[in-house]
Amino acid sequence: MGGREWPLGRLAERLGAELHGDPDRVVRAIAPLGAAGRGDLSFLANRRYLKDLRTTRASAVILGPGDVDVSPTAVLVLPNPYLGYARAAALMADPPAVAPGIHPSAVVDPAADVSPEASIGPLAVVGSGVRVGARARIGPGSVVGAGAVVGGETRLVANVTICRGVQIGARCLFHPGAVVGADGFGLANDQGTWVKIPQFGSVRLGDDVEVGANTTIDRGALQDTVIGDGVKIDNQVQIAHNVVIGPDTAIAGCVAIAGSVRIGARCIIEGAAMISGHLELADEVHVTGGSAVAKSITRSGVWSSGMPAQENHVWRKMWVRMQKLDDFARRLSRLERLGSGRQSDE
Amino acid sequence: MGGREWPLGRLAERLGAELHGDPDRVVRAIAPLGAAGRGDLSFLANRRYLKDLRTTRASAVILGPGDVDVSPTAVLVLPNPYLGYARAAALMADPPAVAPGIHPSAVVDPAADVSPEASIGPLAVVGSGVRVGARARIGPGSVVGAGAVVGGETRLVANVTICRGVQIGARCLFHPGAVVGADGFGLANDQGTWVKIPQFGSVRLGDDVEVGANTTIDRGALQDTVIGDGVKIDNQVQIAHNVVIGPDTAIAGCVAIAGSVRIGARCIIEGAAMISGHLELADEVHVTGGSAVAKSITRSGVWSSGMPAQENHVWRKMWVRMQKLDDFARRLSRLERLGSGRQSDE
Amino acid sequence: MGGREWPLGRLAERLGAELHGDPDRVVRAIAPLGAAGRGDLSFLANRRYLKDLRTTRASAVILGPGDVDVSPTAVLVLPNPYLGYARAAALMADPPAVAPGIHPSAVVDPAADVSPEASIGPLAVVGSGVRVGARARIGPGSVVGAGAVVGGETRLVANVTICRGVQIGARCLFHPGAVVGADGFGLANDQGTWVKIPQFGSVRLGDDVEVGANTTIDRGALQDTVIGDGVKIDNQVQIAHNVVIGPDTAIAGCVAIAGSVRIGARCIIEGAAMISGHLELADEVHVTGGSAVAKSITRSGVWSSGMPAQENHVWRKMWVRMQKLDDFARRLSRLERLGSGRQSDE
Repeated sequence: MGGREWPLGRLAERLGAELHGDPDRVVRAIAPLGAAGRGDLSFLANRRYLKDLRTTRASAVILGPGDVDVSPTAVLVLPNPYLGYARAAALMADPPAVAPGIHPSAVVDPAADVSPEASIGPLAVVGSGVRVGARARIGPGSVVGAGAVVGGETRLVANVTICRGVQIGARCLFHPGAVVGADGFGLANDQGTWVKIPQFGSVRLGDDVEVGANTTIDRGALQDTVIGDGVKIDNQVQIAHNVVIGPDTAIAGCVAIAGSVRIGARCIIEGAAMISGHLELADEVHVTGGSAVAKSITRSGVWSSGMPAQENHVWRKMWVRMQKLDDFARRLSRLERLGSGRQSDE
Repeated sequence: MGGREWPLGRLAERLGAELHGDPDRVVRAIAPLGAAGRGDLSFLANRRYLKDLRTTRASAVILGPGDVDVSPTAVLVLPNPYLGYARAAALMADPPAVAPGIHPSAVVDPAADVSPEASIGPLAVVGSGVRVGARARIGPGSVVGAGAVVGGETRLVANVTICRGVQIGARCLFHPGAVVGADGFGLANDQGTWVKIPQFGSVRLGDDVEVGANTTIDRGALQDTVIGDGVKIDNQVQIAHNVVIGPDTAIAGCVAIAGSVRIGARCIIEGAAMISGHLELADEVHVTGGSAVAKSITRSGVWSSGMPAQENHVWRKMWVRMQKLDDFARRLSRLERLGSGRQSDE
Repeated sequence: MGGREWPLGRLAERLGAELHGDPDRVVRAIAPLGAAGRGDLSFLANRRYLKDLRTTRASAVILGPGDVDVSPTAVLVLPNPYLGYARAAALMADPPAVAPGIHPSAVVDPAADVSPEASIGPLAVVGSGVRVGARARIGPGSVVGAGAVVGGETRLVANVTICRGVQIGARCLFHPGAVVGADGFGLANDQGTWVKIPQFGSVRLGDDVEVGANTTIDRGALQDTVIGDGVKIDNQVQIAHNVVIGPDTAIAGCVAIAGSVRIGARCIIEGAAMISGHLELADEVHVTGGSAVAKSITRSGVWSSGMPAQENHVWRKMWVRMQKLDDFARRLSRLERLGSGRQSDE
């Protein structure tokens, strides 16, 4: 959790925050309000923790302008305290320095072009014609297929697989087990047996993309699968062939995106949602957790279909009733006919 | 995207297509109708792209018999143009030649039996007693456990894990991160704590099976998990212990199949569907995306339960009403009693 | 399937079972009732296989006290035959002896502390400051990041990734492709673009934890993600940052658990269920397959929302009706008003 000392004055300056407190007081780490102690910086981003603020033992807290008076300790005031926490954490993180160079156990094809400033970890494989940019880091056990491009400062943490020809921008981050550029699931049926369709496309990822652990992004069938700049993808996400995702879209864990889907910019797809093939989602569409998008969404908005769990006996009763909806509808219509029949009788 | 030149006459002959056009005209690559240019072959498999056919700049197109007159360019006529595209793509694909032999960085047990025509890639591990068939390819970072069998021309792309004793047929394809033969999830409860049940079975896969990236297929508890010939499995699919899948079944991404399920031949399980334990599905069952199969399906047909996403405010209203279905049912019955009471009064 | 001979007398003694039959008769393997033959031990744990018991050719069977008279063969009587099967299988399993030591192809940092009784497999990577306990086994292709702790007798089967600083107890088992300690999905939004929040926490796992193939457990943002003793996790499960799971909870395949969820002890989460962020589940909560938990569950019980698949035409009709529930509600209320109007008229 950090380690370097940050005087509050200097931290406030870096964050663009207004400081209420001693500029020479130092913080070294970040902790939640309830757990923070001396030397810790904390923050209030969710009103439900307001009571923890009143009793926090943190040396300083990041707060919105309205909460300054409540604080028992030094305050860094910022309009968006959660963003402030993110920026402070980035400043206080102390990533281990990685020495450039190729580990002797790595297997790097002589026809690969690896920046002398890049780092290739133990037991990594870098294929023919691969280009690895400056300060990029190919972690242990990772495989980069022939002809792939890994941009500057991009990091493959460990056991990542980048298939042949995939193009990755700068400052991207791939967590362990991520697989980019496997064949899309293209099949044609010939009288009951499946004929595989070779996948000629590749995958292109922009800059500042994050790809979670064990996430898979398939190569396109004829054209490329495209992931825009700043897209953030969590763990265990499946992105099928020919998908195009606009910049700054965030996709949470276990989402399944079928083939040829086009998703706009700045969308939020919550966990375990699924999107059927060939659909288009406009910019700034928000799909809530577990929802199944089955038609295109042409304008910004929030879409849902997740079915909340209930106690089993309540759920079973609901399910029985749902199966009788057709019967309900008929009975309701009959009652209406009877009613109107009587009305006309009267 | 290919590269070799294919004169249309020769291509028509190989595909069994009727050619309308110059047999000496050449194509080198495949592209969608709207993106194709000179030297490209295209195809019309979906009526929604008919307008793109009229204006395509492709050098040739694969069409069904009814569309020949619409084409502005040379035509290869086939009854199933999508299948024609698959076959043409296979012809035009130009997979890199792989030299047989064992990469010096691979760790191959002396007691493994590797065909001299097979290729073992960099940093792969091949255990004791493993048999690797002719022209099989064990890609970089892959691990093949003791006693496993890898059939001829089967390929493990990279970072694939085949556990001990797993038997794989010929011409199979495993994408990165696939894991075959991990222990099934077998547990017995002893007064609140779990006792692991050793998984004595293995996994047997037929010929021509494809297994997607990060897909998992568990070994059986007492008998084997069995995947039939020609089964195609997409990414991130989970197949639990003791499952038996019939030939030529296709399973799309993120499907979850619980233990001891038996699935017939030529089934289609669409993405993110789930199948509960111990069920049987007949041949040619089609489960649509996101559906939860909770009882056995005894005859061919299409089964569904995916709930399509709606705008959040519409969805919330529906959810409120669903929770009142029981109340609806009671009120409806009361009205019917009132109505019949009156009728009998009259 | 075992191999060593077990005289029934000795087996009964080890299991604490009452033996009906010859104590010198031997069994060598375990098989289902219908498939068992001479030398096999079988068991009846599910009434639906009672007919197989009557005709089994097993040399012995494990039964509950009420079924002894039905058996055509020797019987080991135990109150919980399924648990008896688990224990017998554990006795009869014959795990290959693994020689301690570091394979010459493994890359072990000089500053790692590896027990001389531990085994480090081919092409494994063990980082600086890692501690590996006695009889632990780091399988081929696995990566253990700097500062991690692997407890005694814990096994990483193959291609497992343990990230920096993760702490693992004794006797744990990690299947291939499991990733523990990747960054949680922490992001703050800055006018449309995402700012990554460094993940300062780690993951702590207790003793006797099992983690399935391609399962992911993320490190905490500020505090640790915690997995209790005896927790069993199946394949393709996603456990997000800051999650805390109580002892002896079992989680089946493809479950998605969002950030900061707290799950109690001895819970059962069935396959493909999902749990939304920041919720709490009490001890001994049972969530059925495919359910979406959307609010905290404060007491033990069974919770459900999985929607069972139906024939497509039935499902479509139900879906149409569901979309008209609001209309139904209005029409029902109108009929009730009409009825009460008339009643007041009368």
